[in-house]
Amino acid sequence: MMVLFLAVGGDHGSDSVPIVLLGLAFVLLGAKLGGELFERLGQPSVLGELGTGVLLANLAPLLGLDLSPLTNSETFTVLAELGAILLLFHVGLESTPGQMMAVGGRAAAVATVGVIVPMILGYLVGVVLRPQESWMLHLFLGAMLAATSVGITARVLSDAGALGRPFARVILGAAVIDDVLGLLVLAVISGIITGASSGAALGAGGIVWIVFKAFTFLVGALVVGSFMSPRLFRGALALRSKDVVQTLALSFCFLLSWLALQAGLAPIVGAFAAGLVLEDVHFEENVQRGNRSLHDSLAPLIALLVPVFFVRLGLLVDVRSFATPGVLVFAMSLTAAAIAGKLVCALVVPRALSPLTVALGMLPRGEVGLIFAGIGAALMLDGHPVIDPGAYAAAVFMVVVTTLATPPLLLWSMRRDARASA
Amino acid sequence: MMVLFLAVGGDHGSDSVPIVLLGLAFVLLGAKLGGELFERLGQPSVLGELGTGVLLANLAPLLGLDLSPLTNSETFTVLAELGAILLLFHVGLESTPGQMMAVGGRAAAVATVGVIVPMILGYLVGVVLRPQESWMLHLFLGAMLAATSVGITARVLSDAGALGRPFARVILGAAVIDDVLGLLVLAVISGIITGASSGAALGAGGIVWIVFKAFTFLVGALVVGSFMSPRLFRGALALRSKDVVQTLALSFCFLLSWLALQAGLAPIVGAFAAGLVLEDVHFEENVQRGNRSLHDSLAPLIALLVPVFFVRLGLLVDVRSFATPGVLVFAMSLTAAAIAGKLVCALVVPRALSPLTVALGMLPRGEVGLIFAGIGAALMLDGHPVIDPGAYAAAVFMVVVTTLATPPLLLWSMRRDARASA
Repeated sequence: MMVLFLAVGGDHGSDSVPIVLLGLAFVLLGAKLGGELFERLGQPSVLGELGTGVLLANLAPLLGLDLSPLTNSETFTVLAELGAILLLFHVGLESTPGQMMAVGGRAAAVATVGVIVPMILGYLVGVVLRPQESWMLHLFLGAMLAATSVGITARVLSDAGALGRPFARVILGAAVIDDVLGLLVLAVISGIITGASSGAALGAGGIVWIVFKAFTFLVGALVVGSFMSPRLFRGALALRSKDVVQTLALSFCFLLSWLALQAGLAPIVGAFAAGLVLEDVHFEENVQRGNRSLHDSLAPLIALLVPVFFVRLGLLVDVRSFATPGVLVFAMSLTAAAIAGKLVCALVVPRALSPLTVALGMLPRGEVGLIFAGIGAALMLDGHPVIDPGAYAAAVFMVVVTTLATPPLLLWSMRRDARASA
Repeated sequence: MMVLFLAVGGDHGSDSVPIVLLGLAFVLLGAKLGGELFERLGQPSVLGELGTGVLLANLAPLLGLDLSPLTNSETFTVLAELGAILLLFHVGLESTPGQMMAVGGRAAAVATVGVIVPMILGYLVGVVLRPQESWMLHLFLGAMLAATSVGITARVLSDAGALGRPFARVILGAAVIDDVLGLLVLAVISGIITGASSGAALGAGGIVWIVFKAFTFLVGALVVGSFMSPRLFRGALALRSKDVVQTLALSFCFLLSWLALQAGLAPIVGAFAAGLVLEDVHFEENVQRGNRSLHDSLAPLIALLVPVFFVRLGLLVDVRSFATPGVLVFAMSLTAAAIAGKLVCALVVPRALSPLTVALGMLPRGEVGLIFAGIGAALMLDGHPVIDPGAYAAAVFMVVVTTLATPPLLLWSMRRDARASA
């Protein structure tokens, strides 16, 4: 009879339906309560959502609960990713390509400084604390500190209603360029290490191809998208169905996220580009016809899926990995390098654009830092992983500190800017 | 380098992120265009969504495209299931437990007739067309015709704005009871067959346990839920966060869907129960405070996920399985039994409650029919599957015809009722 029960239960859909349902129920509830608590303390609610995840992940083993079916669930991972995609789509909708171009040079300067300086500092941490190891490993440590994860910052800016401010545009533009640069750095260094291991060097052609794909996507999305989207949506308004604009906009967002992945970029870069080229002004006619605005359509989707993303980010944190004493010094040095490296960005931002706020906005490494560390753990050099378990724990520490520290620091800095300009 | 690219692309989340993004983009677009076409033809838009799925599944091989990564994707399956869950939650919100109890006796009569008569007719089809086979196999054919899949009907009623009408409540109540009866029939017959194969008979205790779990869930959800939900939501209004009511309502919906699965029922039964016990009246204060109403919060989620459910249902249809001549006679006989068996329900519905409309509402077998057939294909009797490939193809034909025929027939019948009462 047990087999039958499993078959009846499981076949009402996929075997992972029960764990996803239970996970969603508790993640949504926990995220809301954690967010509420932190809001009452004057802190950003996203910190409460991250904290809920950290708390769940680290209390569950003490209570004898096993959360791995949830954290390892493919569907839960994809739902979290969809949350990040919708968040960045929403963020992109608040700006236009023209507004982004206007801050383009400044954003490029911030991104370049914010990739190069952390790389140098991370390399130096490796040279000083792990002198016996190869320069290639030191270089990989540096690369791990390069890429910003823009989700946290985007959420804080969005909650504070600051997405339309020029400094926010510099941060968002820099984050997109940062993603391209981080991809290049990772590809080049991994190529060098793989080449050193296998004897086959990374050709210049390989690097050019990576750059070509990323830029083709970005330019293509902005130019073709800006040209196509007004025409497409004007056509859509000829349709009678409910929610045509919402459906078309989401399709467009998912398509560009997929194209970004094909170009080797993060899907959220595609979602952001999709948001940029869609202008709310195209949708005025839609609202005049009694439909929900795109903004109102997105809000409930964001309220459902974005907490899944942030709670899941917290769930990945195992605080026990910081307990080893030797690891802690290495971890704190790496974290200091990660923070100092991005704070230097403030030097290339003029005073009117809130330099400290911009630099703080670039701090979080989030899931991107974990991805880099994971790739390093899988790369072998002379029979050893490039990122050994100690270095991996240090990377996780760096990610956790930069990610958790950003929301309160960013909020503090924005309030300080507001007082200064008042 | 290929490994690196895969790692970078894949590690931006799960490996199934790209296929889900591309699938969502095209499924949403296709569903909207298919729905629009059928609406213009005066047909229900859900038929267009099903048709989009059937068309995609059967044209793709001709074009050399392989859709199996999408149809086999765990995440895509769960997203479809979440669509069905949110649809039935929305449907449940439109009624109260009291309103459902008022039609309870009538709904029970419809469900009982609608389970017993198709079973007898399906058994007879087996006796006449497959006389050489065991009576247990004939019984399983009958069981396969018993259970209604309420998603299609709920969608048509919802689109027509008819959810609040008494005949709609009879259909929805009967569908819930039908799910419980179907579960029992399947468990008992599978138990008999497994017992005949292994020599261990299904005990009365096993059957009592199945009934006990299902009823405990239903009574518990309605009684405890009705008592708890006003108190819970009054407490929630003390929180400051945005979207508290939406979050709490969705958590409740997912929790009850999970509990239904634990009780051996379909998750949509839990979602429907959750909708029943939540009353919009609790939420008036929420709206007065400037928040989105629960109805407005659900609409965009439904617009995103419900088409995924119906397109996926269409994707599962392989029209080539009907091409075998021997199968076609068997399939058409089984389909006739399935339709006639449910139309008999009209006899126990008084004229004021639109008997034909109620009976037509019980027709679709949808994914439930496919689940039953799949369980039969996995059950062995004397070394052969109870449902062989020919019988499985016939079951798919029955499911397709009852599912595709329902939306236009139901719309026609409702319009006829409206004219008669005008």
